[in-house]
Amino acid sequence: MTVSIIGYGQTEVSEAWETSLRLLAWYAIEAALDDAHTTEIDALYVGNMLGGTLSNQRQLGALIADFAGMKGIEATVVEAAEASGAAALRQAVLAVSSGMVRTALVVGVEKASDTTGSSAEKALATSLDADYEQVHGATPAAMAALMMQRYMHEYGASIDDFAGFSVNAHANGSSNPLAMYRNKLRAEKFGFAPQIATPVSLFDAAPAGDGSAAVIVTSTERAADMVPQPVQIIGSAAATDTLALHDRTDILWLSAAAKSAQGAMQMADVTHDDIDLFELHDAYTILATLALEAAGFAAQGEGIELARAGQIRRDGSIPISTFGGLKARGNPLGATGVYQIVEIARQLQGKAGGNQIENATIGMAQNLGGLGATAITHILKI
Amino acid sequence: MTVSIIGYGQTEVSEAWETSLRLLAWYAIEAALDDAHTTEIDALYVGNMLGGTLSNQRQLGALIADFAGMKGIEATVVEAAEASGAAALRQAVLAVSSGMVRTALVVGVEKASDTTGSSAEKALATSLDADYEQVHGATPAAMAALMMQRYMHEYGASIDDFAGFSVNAHANGSSNPLAMYRNKLRAEKFGFAPQIATPVSLFDAAPAGDGSAAVIVTSTERAADMVPQPVQIIGSAAATDTLALHDRTDILWLSAAAKSAQGAMQMADVTHDDIDLFELHDAYTILATLALEAAGFAAQGEGIELARAGQIRRDGSIPISTFGGLKARGNPLGATGVYQIVEIARQLQGKAGGNQIENATIGMAQNLGGLGATAITHILKI
Repeated sequence: MTVSIIGYGQTEVSEAWETSLRLLAWYAIEAALDDAHTTEIDALYVGNMLGGTLSNQRQLGALIADFAGMKGIEATVVEAAEASGAAALRQAVLAVSSGMVRTALVVGVEKASDTTGSSAEKALATSLDADYEQVHGATPAAMAALMMQRYMHEYGASIDDFAGFSVNAHANGSSNPLAMYRNKLRAEKFGFAPQIATPVSLFDAAPAGDGSAAVIVTSTERAADMVPQPVQIIGSAAATDTLALHDRTDILWLSAAAKSAQGAMQMADVTHDDIDLFELHDAYTILATLALEAAGFAAQGEGIELARAGQIRRDGSIPISTFGGLKARGNPLGATGVYQIVEIARQLQGKAGGNQIENATIGMAQNLGGLGATAITHILKI
Repeated sequence: MTVSIIGYGQTEVSEAWETSLRLLAWYAIEAALDDAHTTEIDALYVGNMLGGTLSNQRQLGALIADFAGMKGIEATVVEAAEASGAAALRQAVLAVSSGMVRTALVVGVEKASDTTGSSAEKALATSLDADYEQVHGATPAAMAALMMQRYMHEYGASIDDFAGFSVNAHANGSSNPLAMYRNKLRAEKFGFAPQIATPVSLFDAAPAGDGSAAVIVTSTERAADMVPQPVQIIGSAAATDTLALHDRTDILWLSAAAKSAQGAMQMADVTHDDIDLFELHDAYTILATLALEAAGFAAQGEGIELARAGQIRRDGSIPISTFGGLKARGNPLGATGVYQIVEIARQLQGKAGGNQIENATIGMAQNLGGLGATAITHILKI
């Protein structure tokens, strides 16, 4: 049984000081229910990374189901660090495919900036290996810096070579009213940004933010009768790698990203030429580079060329971050993977406004946990 | 497609000061792989509640997959507070049923007593409503106390009436070498235990512990060719209720427990008389009482009679906690739901040793999150 999206919703990514975790989730759910013209939901999958620590709230499945007026339905949280959003969608796809769940609601929700629990910095590092990385004071930015430094060394790239990723993200974010940062960025300013973990600067790293995105999925057969423009999920695959970078044979090869992209493309029966846009996990510019290489859009060491040559822009050969990506739309962690799906659905339905990719019919989304320890890829088609 | 268990494993429940979270998980996984005579695992579902807070470790799916020698496979964490173990199994059942995952490994793992992160007491309370219960200093024991007090008031029960649950749990735990507490308990001592939240005493409340349990599932068709005694999962259902007790119309009715039990029994096409044992969620004696009522083994207000009359013992009409239950085997939170499944599988295979229920062919397991906000029921048959 194939699965299709019949509705979606999303909130602005921001610092949501005055909105509780459950209310933030509701805003996206309400929009998705309206879009799907249904309130009949059989199961809820919540993508969330830090609620248990930063908001002292676990069991968000039951909590959000109740708050959204769906008390009683099957509901659970799915967690794979920053890949929690796509992991939740993946479980919904499996659940609907099983025939045991008819209609599933996926909501990714995160409050990263407003904490009532522990510190956000320490909580973010829980996507790294606690016993072998965190124990040395490592942070995700620090580990991304090791990758970027190595890339520059191996392939003779300069810091300025990475500018294209952020310039593109901010250009696209500037016309997305839901983006956390809507300022444009000039390439010549890129190299002057304060470095947070050399060589990773503020312009390489995506900002953690608060936000919520939701999608509703059901069987493709039912979807056709329910909404005018269902979006089919033709590919879905998940894979993993070591958390600790030192356990990888090549820290410049995202093996889980490669494996999940191949799996999703094989299931979808598509080639690279078929893919009109790629919402990848640009938490750091180096991750954008490596994700393009892992997915096969560039050879190893040549992902950076796509940014240099502008091929990642909306008019390029493989547009990425079309609503700003993690860098400019913002990175609401456990919600990010669901934002990517919503953004592709908007593109495929021709509802992307000023951010529209012309004639887009197939889009790929890839969500990463940590520095690529979890990778989940979905391919959507209209 | 129906799903069967082809292997399982479990560790002792204890305070595992010298064992890391990943190593604890491996011990149960290793035993399950040995039992199933296979190493071909396609997906891993980890049931865990507190790793992100107490051990600063998220993304346990990828971490444990790698540590267990399965680097690369699909892997994720499933969280529904104390019901995380059964929630992980539920996702594995859906995944195998979809036909997209051939063989799935479920591991429940928890380190509750040895924390490198926040305090265990505060972390345990994250299964309650943060904004409306925790904010007043509520703990799970305190909320269970409200339920127990109300039960005593409504039905004229005394504290001593609850003794049968703990006496039975400790009697069964005394012959389980993996139980956290193996001391027998005499009914006449029950009323003298120190109260931790009046009227809940140390003899009502199950101890949080460290432990890991694992099961491997695949299609029933394949299972028959792989192992001599596959255990079929003939019923599986999940439901939710409000987290906050004040939002329930009747705090003595576990509506999610009732709904998930009915759902699982309907799917399994069994009646109460068919069920030979019931591994329920006796985190507190009041939850054992209410779970028996919600599942339909007793009318409201009469669950306590089953304990008084000894009908919950191994030779009674509906044996519960046959290896000690949460009370004596111990409550390793996110792992508990998987322990329940392992214990039923052992009973149905006739491998329960001194704890054997004669001629058991069908068993029911029910795992609760918080005070019943999440309820997941599975029915197993041999």
